[in-house]
Amino acid sequence: MTLIAETGPTVFETVESEVRSYCRTWPTVFERATGSRLFDEHGRPFLDFFAGAGSLNYGHNNPALKRPLLDYLGGDGITHGLDMSTTAKREFLETFRSTVLAPRALPYKVMFPGPTGTNAVEAALKLARKVTGRTTVVSFTNAFHGMSLGSLALTGNAGKRAGAGVPLTHTVQMPYDRYLGGALPDFHWFERLLEDSGSGLDHPAAVIVETVQGEGGVNPARAEWLRGLADLCRRRDMLLIVDDIQMGCGRTGDFFSFEEAGITPDIVTLSKSISGYGLPLSLCLFRDELDVWEPGEHNGTFRGNNPAFVTATAALDAYWRDTALRDRTLRRAATVEAALGELGTAAAPRGRGLVWGLEFEDGERARAVCRRAFELGLLVETSGPRDEVVKLLPPLTVTDDELDEGLGILSRAVRHTA
Amino acid sequence: MTLIAETGPTVFETVESEVRSYCRTWPTVFERATGSRLFDEHGRPFLDFFAGAGSLNYGHNNPALKRPLLDYLGGDGITHGLDMSTTAKREFLETFRSTVLAPRALPYKVMFPGPTGTNAVEAALKLARKVTGRTTVVSFTNAFHGMSLGSLALTGNAGKRAGAGVPLTHTVQMPYDRYLGGALPDFHWFERLLEDSGSGLDHPAAVIVETVQGEGGVNPARAEWLRGLADLCRRRDMLLIVDDIQMGCGRTGDFFSFEEAGITPDIVTLSKSISGYGLPLSLCLFRDELDVWEPGEHNGTFRGNNPAFVTATAALDAYWRDTALRDRTLRRAATVEAALGELGTAAAPRGRGLVWGLEFEDGERARAVCRRAFELGLLVETSGPRDEVVKLLPPLTVTDDELDEGLGILSRAVRHTA
Amino acid sequence: MTLIAETGPTVFETVESEVRSYCRTWPTVFERATGSRLFDEHGRPFLDFFAGAGSLNYGHNNPALKRPLLDYLGGDGITHGLDMSTTAKREFLETFRSTVLAPRALPYKVMFPGPTGTNAVEAALKLARKVTGRTTVVSFTNAFHGMSLGSLALTGNAGKRAGAGVPLTHTVQMPYDRYLGGALPDFHWFERLLEDSGSGLDHPAAVIVETVQGEGGVNPARAEWLRGLADLCRRRDMLLIVDDIQMGCGRTGDFFSFEEAGITPDIVTLSKSISGYGLPLSLCLFRDELDVWEPGEHNGTFRGNNPAFVTATAALDAYWRDTALRDRTLRRAATVEAALGELGTAAAPRGRGLVWGLEFEDGERARAVCRRAFELGLLVETSGPRDEVVKLLPPLTVTDDELDEGLGILSRAVRHTA
Amino acid sequence: MTLIAETGPTVFETVESEVRSYCRTWPTVFERATGSRLFDEHGRPFLDFFAGAGSLNYGHNNPALKRPLLDYLGGDGITHGLDMSTTAKREFLETFRSTVLAPRALPYKVMFPGPTGTNAVEAALKLARKVTGRTTVVSFTNAFHGMSLGSLALTGNAGKRAGAGVPLTHTVQMPYDRYLGGALPDFHWFERLLEDSGSGLDHPAAVIVETVQGEGGVNPARAEWLRGLADLCRRRDMLLIVDDIQMGCGRTGDFFSFEEAGITPDIVTLSKSISGYGLPLSLCLFRDELDVWEPGEHNGTFRGNNPAFVTATAALDAYWRDTALRDRTLRRAATVEAALGELGTAAAPRGRGLVWGLEFEDGERARAVCRRAFELGLLVETSGPRDEVVKLLPPLTVTDDELDEGLGILSRAVRHTA
Repeated sequence: MTLIAETGPTVFETVESEVRSYCRTWPTVFERATGSRLFDEHGRPFLDFFAGAGSLNYGHNNPALKRPLLDYLGGDGITHGLDMSTTAKREFLETFRSTVLAPRALPYKVMFPGPTGTNAVEAALKLARKVTGRTTVVSFTNAFHGMSLGSLALTGNAGKRAGAGVPLTHTVQMPYDRYLGGALPDFHWFERLLEDSGSGLDHPAAVIVETVQGEGGVNPARAEWLRGLADLCRRRDMLLIVDDIQMGCGRTGDFFSFEEAGITPDIVTLSKSISGYGLPLSLCLFRDELDVWEPGEHNGTFRGNNPAFVTATAALDAYWRDTALRDRTLRRAATVEAALGELGTAAAPRGRGLVWGLEFEDGERARAVCRRAFELGLLVETSGPRDEVVKLLPPLTVTDDELDEGLGILSRAVRHTA
Repeated sequence: MTLIAETGPTVFETVESEVRSYCRTWPTVFERATGSRLFDEHGRPFLDFFAGAGSLNYGHNNPALKRPLLDYLGGDGITHGLDMSTTAKREFLETFRSTVLAPRALPYKVMFPGPTGTNAVEAALKLARKVTGRTTVVSFTNAFHGMSLGSLALTGNAGKRAGAGVPLTHTVQMPYDRYLGGALPDFHWFERLLEDSGSGLDHPAAVIVETVQGEGGVNPARAEWLRGLADLCRRRDMLLIVDDIQMGCGRTGDFFSFEEAGITPDIVTLSKSISGYGLPLSLCLFRDELDVWEPGEHNGTFRGNNPAFVTATAALDAYWRDTALRDRTLRRAATVEAALGELGTAAAPRGRGLVWGLEFEDGERARAVCRRAFELGLLVETSGPRDEVVKLLPPLTVTDDELDEGLGILSRAVRHTA
Repeated sequence: MTLIAETGPTVFETVESEVRSYCRTWPTVFERATGSRLFDEHGRPFLDFFAGAGSLNYGHNNPALKRPLLDYLGGDGITHGLDMSTTAKREFLETFRSTVLAPRALPYKVMFPGPTGTNAVEAALKLARKVTGRTTVVSFTNAFHGMSLGSLALTGNAGKRAGAGVPLTHTVQMPYDRYLGGALPDFHWFERLLEDSGSGLDHPAAVIVETVQGEGGVNPARAEWLRGLADLCRRRDMLLIVDDIQMGCGRTGDFFSFEEAGITPDIVTLSKSISGYGLPLSLCLFRDELDVWEPGEHNGTFRGNNPAFVTATAALDAYWRDTALRDRTLRRAATVEAALGELGTAAAPRGRGLVWGLEFEDGERARAVCRRAFELGLLVETSGPRDEVVKLLPPLTVTDDELDEGLGILSRAVRHTA
Repeated sequence: MTLIAETGPTVFETVESEVRSYCRTWPTVFERATGSRLFDEHGRPFLDFFAGAGSLNYGHNNPALKRPLLDYLGGDGITHGLDMSTTAKREFLETFRSTVLAPRALPYKVMFPGPTGTNAVEAALKLARKVTGRTTVVSFTNAFHGMSLGSLALTGNAGKRAGAGVPLTHTVQMPYDRYLGGALPDFHWFERLLEDSGSGLDHPAAVIVETVQGEGGVNPARAEWLRGLADLCRRRDMLLIVDDIQMGCGRTGDFFSFEEAGITPDIVTLSKSISGYGLPLSLCLFRDELDVWEPGEHNGTFRGNNPAFVTATAALDAYWRDTALRDRTLRRAATVEAALGELGTAAAPRGRGLVWGLEFEDGERARAVCRRAFELGLLVETSGPRDEVVKLLPPLTVTDDELDEGLGILSRAVRHTA
């Protein structure tokens, strides 16, 4: 099947940089999208189990968000607002307070550090270092926290690290949950380093963690491991940063992925699905007493993306005033796990809520599964250090039929590539 | 005059971080905007001579961009596209090629490094270091290139640098044009360091420059200085990066601010007004032969902001298929300069096109001017190392009357604060 | 007992910096020394079980070295020779080759990197980084490799690290032998990081190790652990550096402390007892194929300390042309271990050859033991991250009687402080 | 003329590392030395106008130092003393106080940071960073401060810097006196950076300077430039470190090279000729109020080189209780300058006291002059970034006849290579 029929190289090939990547995996030209489906320019539909790498938890062009957005833009609402006060920002802050912070009794201030995840991580690092006066930040094996220089130093992936072109410093990697196969008690190595003044570990400012590592291969940490980490941070005077950029906004069920563990991080980063509509927005949340910023000490041109405030507010209103979405996501976890468990992959499926990983014997097979799934009309991508894990991130608004359909296509793709 | 009458602290004060800044300068709540004017929630109009720090060169909610945007969103066009191929991206690339690259014979590939300026700078740094295998990058006194760790190391401002919390390394600062008052031939110090193997300057990978320093206090470099720099880079085997994030997209007249000097940088960063509508988008352009990226070696969730492609395409179509906007901007430079010259400020007004700076005796006075202008209905902001420069960035689409009105308000604000 | 009776503060207190330390532990003024004994200015003898922190393996003013030294100096031999060729250096190189390198078939070139241990470590780091083109060097928990910036980054001790005043970078700490209590197979964590391209560990240039950690609290690595490390380095393409500054020159029995394990490091650093007379000298040895230095690429004013060559040659002639010293040292290990085992300390005595550590419940007790030993006429010092280990480093030339005497005093000091 | 006749490669070639350098310039094997002369193993004399790179200001094996040294060693004085109090150290401290510190009213504490110059520089950096809590240290173009990682970051030479294998950070280079040809007022650039909070220069902890750059090509700073620098440091709250390792101990006339300028640095490093006999010793001197070290926070095995204390004391006694040596050195400066001025080299001879540089058109010629001088029986070496400067460092104890002889040989070498 030829998906792109052209007589010569496309403008993507002649003008766009070689750095482009997803367009190589999914070789067609997409035109529109709605709910769980993308359509290419030939009208061919694709079920989207990638959801903008977790940026489209409420699906494409969700009508509950689209209407307010069109109204706002149509009415000449502020589009670009730096960090001026606007009615759209006020409504967002009030809604975020009433639907997210207050019900959970979270003592957080909200910062808009720039429109994308890595901006939020950079801001979190600055703040943790400023508050503590220390430089070292601990991250975990197979972590992914972004591509700007500060965030990249926390990221595990060797290829991405090599792209920095300068040594990546001021960070130390610790083993993520189950990394050492359970041979050691949780945090044994980490705590030994902390308690031993001869260990060579400079006292860290903070620890940054994903509750489920998405790019790292869909590795969910156990709740007790996260509790142990929070406890370690408290006992050892380190700030705990949860990077909830991919796993927040309901991906694992609760609004924040750390709620299940019953912990309260000192700093939280949010992005991807916070605008709910795929519009760039990110937040950095932190305990009130950590709000030691000078005005403008961190800034960014697009930190106040007002159309994104509008859709973000609509999304909170539509999905987080009750527990329906959360409950449905948690229920579906079992469905997905069961379906994936029958595929006979190299390892048991792993995940939480609606993020799942299927580990294959190697990256070649996993990539073949994704290619075949694409041909069969399903978008899924690989992750993990060797691309060996097929990652499922369907919209949380996926219907039961769509979920069945997608899992069915995946099953066929696995069989076809065996 | 009380602009906000409230009985208690606002949600901005109780929930938003202390890092907020512009909302302190302009203490009201904005609601909508059109053309050169913003309106607060009480309907009070403000003439906007800040234009989103240069992100709104075509004014607020420009109808020529608004219509295609509403059509696109209304028709369920792709909003979030990672770096998938989409019809919106194709149209943008083709339009960018036909209106920008081809007419200027610029041999550039286009990279979407993430939606904000600092992402583009980080990508440019990575690429320059990868291509050359060197680490040092030269920037200039009073430069501003962004707030993530890589970009911040290039930035001059001491307060912003201090926010890093770690030493900023791998960069060296050189004197910007006229920084040493003309006592030395251009680049004398820089070239001495380069030619002297005992100077302690490790051979730089690249030099990054703004043709007019915006945040640094509106310092325009002379065309011959820029030519000298380009020549130095060529002779001494360093890549030349022009950061055109604030000064590109017609701000100085030409689409690129470096066109006047007749130079062709190796790498160019664009953001702010490239989407034309205040939507987050940035580009990194570089010579074809520098396109040594591995697929995905740099990435970012919001690198393909498709609504921004739509408005960007519309803006190029509306304003860059002929020279009308450019010519008008260049003509207006003289008008603005003349008007500002009569204000009797501490130094002659300086600028190019529609970016102008008025230097006052100190930051206190300049801030007072901005406060008074706000009270009189004009938004302007300070810049410079001591906030001593009032910076004018009206939309390029400002009408003659609006321009007169704004300059008149500014004149009064200067007089009132004398 | 008052050891120093003065009417006012001494010149040590008024002129010497507060950084002085051993003089606080041993509050007297020493005047002369011979064999295993130091004498203070009042003629009071002290048995020296510290031996210049391992710099006096052949005792103080050993006659076999003293005579050639006096002859050399008396005959106006070259004292200061930079790296000129001298007869003294030639004799040393020839003797080192015939007594050390050739009998062990060690394929090493010899470099004189400066007169002290940290110079040798800095040179080893430079060479490893130059050869591999990589920056990261792995060291171990509780390592000590010196106090200049490059070496300090490898050192574990938090107080010493803090003294750097800048972040210490380009190094990663791994658990030393038995650090995790045997819960994990040797090098499990290290190898996981190496094999996992998502671990965040940049491929190291080299690993640097002490076979027995002296400053770290007298921690001897098992021979099989060292063999495992050498094997890991070979399999994973990392250079193996053994820092034999304190443990070399016969301290553990063999000339090199790594001989027992049957490994051949890529790079070896030697200092302390290599001159045999307490004169500053250090060597950096490395495999012939690693000798990629440019002439003068690393240098140092005192790298050719010719009087030290003379005593070094004499020491090799006197002690390393047969196995008598080695055999005696190995035999004595058992004696010392047995004697120390009867003291009932917090942990079993640990050591090899004539380096032994006695761990007490805390640093306070260990320091009290050293103070009491001093009062009783024995010089011993603490080590370990909390100063909790009394370290024994008697001269290898100690007589049986002196050894008994010293162990007896130590036993009394332990009892008196119980 | 064949200087070494051998049937095969020497042990220097087969065993010593390729890093060796001076032995390549002076291809013979030296055996003994006295006063201003070295003798090779064939008895051939060489007049030494290099003096151990400034380590032998009192000549080789000076009898006034030799006698006490032989007595001390013969009498079993302490050779190796870590930082224990010894009679030899006491005598040195008292003599240093009475002959150096007290007569000049210098308020310094004395630290023994290790036996070589780079140890002293590393200690000075640590102290400056600790006292100020800042990281950046300013050095000058063509500076040389040593080869360990901290010192190397201050050093200008590109080849030596490249040897680091890691980026050299936390330092900034400023133009040395006359580097910009006098086009700018002294420190104009430096002060602009300091006064401008947008300059990108992080507030430095300290400035380190050589009053005459030896390795950098014999560049003497003018006294008023040094005074300007001291004034700048005081006004701008930066510590002033004078690295007097090569230029101290009378090389320029006064004991300290900065005395002529009438300044009092905050920190001074001394090494090379401080022992007076070529034995490794270095000092770090600093204002009493800067003595914030913790005991042992910086240390080093050979920091108490007691034989070096003995010769250092003897040298101070012999040469610094009156002004005879100083006066003679100052008188000879004129003689040397006049003689060198007649050689018609590329630039006027430059220097102070008994350190002089002769600049040739390129490094090839300068090296040829040194080679020819060697053949004629004179040891001189090149320096400068391109090796273009022949550097003269005769012993301060050189006789009038020897000085004439050496200058005569040099003159012939210049002519022979024209």
